[in-house]
Amino acid sequence: MTDPKFHQVAGPFSLEKLATIAGADLANGDPKALFHDVAPLDMAGPDDVSFLDNKRYADAFTKSKAGACIVDPGMADKAPKGMALLLTKLPYHGYGLVAQAFYPAFIPAPSIHSSAVVNPTAIIDKAVCIESGVVVGKNVHIGKNCHIAANTVIGDGVVVGDNCRIGPSVTLSCAMLGNNVIVHTGVRIGQDGFGFAMSPEGHIKVPQLGRVVIEDDVEIGANTTIDRGTGPDTIIGAGTKIDNLVQIGHNVRIGRNCIIVSHVGISGSTTLGDFVALGGQAGIAGHLTIGDGVQVAAQSGIMRDVAPGLKVGGSPALPFREWMRGVAAIENLGKKKGK
Amino acid sequence: MTDPKFHQVAGPFSLEKLATIAGADLANGDPKALFHDVAPLDMAGPDDVSFLDNKRYADAFTKSKAGACIVDPGMADKAPKGMALLLTKLPYHGYGLVAQAFYPAFIPAPSIHSSAVVNPTAIIDKAVCIESGVVVGKNVHIGKNCHIAANTVIGDGVVVGDNCRIGPSVTLSCAMLGNNVIVHTGVRIGQDGFGFAMSPEGHIKVPQLGRVVIEDDVEIGANTTIDRGTGPDTIIGAGTKIDNLVQIGHNVRIGRNCIIVSHVGISGSTTLGDFVALGGQAGIAGHLTIGDGVQVAAQSGIMRDVAPGLKVGGSPALPFREWMRGVAAIENLGKKKGK
Amino acid sequence: MTDPKFHQVAGPFSLEKLATIAGADLANGDPKALFHDVAPLDMAGPDDVSFLDNKRYADAFTKSKAGACIVDPGMADKAPKGMALLLTKLPYHGYGLVAQAFYPAFIPAPSIHSSAVVNPTAIIDKAVCIESGVVVGKNVHIGKNCHIAANTVIGDGVVVGDNCRIGPSVTLSCAMLGNNVIVHTGVRIGQDGFGFAMSPEGHIKVPQLGRVVIEDDVEIGANTTIDRGTGPDTIIGAGTKIDNLVQIGHNVRIGRNCIIVSHVGISGSTTLGDFVALGGQAGIAGHLTIGDGVQVAAQSGIMRDVAPGLKVGGSPALPFREWMRGVAAIENLGKKKGK
Repeated sequence: MTDPKFHQVAGPFSLEKLATIAGADLANGDPKALFHDVAPLDMAGPDDVSFLDNKRYADAFTKSKAGACIVDPGMADKAPKGMALLLTKLPYHGYGLVAQAFYPAFIPAPSIHSSAVVNPTAIIDKAVCIESGVVVGKNVHIGKNCHIAANTVIGDGVVVGDNCRIGPSVTLSCAMLGNNVIVHTGVRIGQDGFGFAMSPEGHIKVPQLGRVVIEDDVEIGANTTIDRGTGPDTIIGAGTKIDNLVQIGHNVRIGRNCIIVSHVGISGSTTLGDFVALGGQAGIAGHLTIGDGVQVAAQSGIMRDVAPGLKVGGSPALPFREWMRGVAAIENLGKKKGK
Repeated sequence: MTDPKFHQVAGPFSLEKLATIAGADLANGDPKALFHDVAPLDMAGPDDVSFLDNKRYADAFTKSKAGACIVDPGMADKAPKGMALLLTKLPYHGYGLVAQAFYPAFIPAPSIHSSAVVNPTAIIDKAVCIESGVVVGKNVHIGKNCHIAANTVIGDGVVVGDNCRIGPSVTLSCAMLGNNVIVHTGVRIGQDGFGFAMSPEGHIKVPQLGRVVIEDDVEIGANTTIDRGTGPDTIIGAGTKIDNLVQIGHNVRIGRNCIIVSHVGISGSTTLGDFVALGGQAGIAGHLTIGDGVQVAAQSGIMRDVAPGLKVGGSPALPFREWMRGVAAIENLGKKKGK
Repeated sequence: MTDPKFHQVAGPFSLEKLATIAGADLANGDPKALFHDVAPLDMAGPDDVSFLDNKRYADAFTKSKAGACIVDPGMADKAPKGMALLLTKLPYHGYGLVAQAFYPAFIPAPSIHSSAVVNPTAIIDKAVCIESGVVVGKNVHIGKNCHIAANTVIGDGVVVGDNCRIGPSVTLSCAMLGNNVIVHTGVRIGQDGFGFAMSPEGHIKVPQLGRVVIEDDVEIGANTTIDRGTGPDTIIGAGTKIDNLVQIGHNVRIGRNCIIVSHVGISGSTTLGDFVALGGQAGIAGHLTIGDGVQVAAQSGIMRDVAPGLKVGGSPALPFREWMRGVAAIENLGKKKGK
């Protein structure tokens, strides 16, 4: 189904193997039957595994020709006849794992391209691929199974853990990366934060003396920028996923497993708890504390601390229901005036 | 008028030639007279061609010393004595074509720099310039008259049509580009979309198995990011123009001749019709349909489908007049409270 | 206190030397005593210099073990016993200068890496470091004590003044830079502005024939984009500081000592006075005039001219107090409806 120029499929996998991968129970079908690819419900054939996560697509599920489907047990009775079922309460989760098995991350063979400029003091595991035009500074450490794509620049002292994928044309400086970190193309980590002593005679640059610490399993989207701390560090917690074109200011501390959508800006010295979700283009002022599990609507502007578990929206942001009522009130004002 | 260090002028062109280029009627002046440059009304001299598009500048037109002017027929009677007139209903359009003739896009001589790393399986037309530090992956196709500027990285399997200009430090992967495509410096096309199966135990990466398809005559501004599809493709329709620092999510389908201003974010799986115009910093939620000819004000937040031809504004967005009335009502509330 | 892998401390400096550097009066302590580093109030020890700028931290000041502190004269009586005091009305300003002395900008030894591609017509001062993968075009001028980091591309005719630091993977074209300019990684300066003659048959590209002029002491944050003018120049005034991911359109003229926070977008042909401050994610429409000293709240949308000295907020923006009252009114509407 995918374009083989860009994506090479692994497999095939037996149904029982797929059930294990997905963490699912096998409810129907031959455990030894082989499957060759993943596909959406409406395009899948008898050799493909599909999934149903959103009940909006229940109809496509009922009509699907997929040989197997990862699905919630509550939907099993709506399956078309003959479809093998992989039952789990987290079907999309299961699909993600199965799709990873069919399309494993491509790790090129270990090598260092002759045009890479690698400082002799750098300590680089043997199982690392460093492509052309890459710069590796003094005393850099790079762990095993890393892929450093073309034209990326890694500054002096940077540490990259194991199993990291650093895309092309990335810049890393003053940074410590954990394991399994994915940094997409054009990301900038560790440059000076925006720190000036302002005065009517002009603005004095304040040296930025901290680092950026990226914990395990973080993913960072294309052209995103993360400034280093002024003295304390800027910290991105384990498992956090950051989209494209996001700005993270100096001394920001982000907890574990946060989701930060594109064009979000987080101002200096703000702290986020765990499992915080920030919608696209949201902005957070500096020196704030955002609690665990907070959800922020797209384009919101956060100007005060937010307590754990709250959903907020608007600019300046309010609790979600108040914001929605205010929006409705404005809509009414707009309509009334027109009469 | 321009700095010759940066812009080399072509020409001269005769008045009749310029009329043909502009698609204009020659109303005055010697068809054989030669013109040497373009210039704004207030700076143009007798050898220059200027234009009047916005009636706000009618006074500058009347006083201009330009030898020739591209102008709407309705303004002809306000021209200063002796000015040659090139009459067209689309003066700015005509000016664009004339300025292109005086300042044609610079295409360097075909060559491949010795430091470029070109995979031997790549198929590259002879009339292509590939600058230093460029990487060209396996099975890449590059059409004729293309210019690939320094340090750009083109991933395996990418197709670039004819007459494309790819700026410096660009990244292309999993992408198919048509003809006459302009990609400015720092653009990222084809990286993984932001796709995760989220759960309280952490977020599972979902492989992104689609491509990016860029049709003919598209222009993409500096540091913009366009993610590849999850399975379907991300598609940018022919003639669409995208400004700097725009984010386009996975599976987004943009129609023909759209205008997308800087810092716009379009979330995954949203579809835009033809001739849609999105103002700066506007955001569009995922899985929406925006009809042909829709106009979205700057900073708007679109959370529902928008019917063809509508003008909308605000966050969340409303029909333009309702939004403007709501804005006026808030302004009044603010003023009243102050009394 | 800082990680010596990333930041090398200079010094030590005597107390009297530090007073001179900070422009402060020495109120207490031995002028010959030596200090070895800077540190925040709560982490500083007897060898460190700290500062108190924000009265919120008065308590930390009273308890601090810092050997010396830069502080406002009005706070002197609250200092702990034995702390040397450097008294100035601008303590953060003084701290910035002292921190610069301890952590001077790193300027590598002059050299041109063998993989840099430098056109023989370029005029480059001897005291310049050009790293690997850099491209320097025809007739480029680079002044003394400049550092051009790896994989940066400098187009034909570009001028870079003295003491400039250009980060990795930057693109400069059609640009004139003054002295002491800092350009962070991934910045794009001088590409085509977003200029098209639009029509129902499609959009004609209008050649962009101007330049970008960056005056002295400007700093530009990572992945920011500044388009060149259409004919006139785009101008960034002396001492202006620009954060990450900012978009500055063609023909924009920014005055002196402005502060522009991340994700701001300034549309074409708008003019800013001196000491204008734009909060994060603010947007300014085209062809406007923003007076000296104007302050714009984060996420504001400016659609009209703003008179000098005004503070504005909201989208569309209002004078600050009216905006705040409107916000309060909406909040009330939201709460009332809920009853």
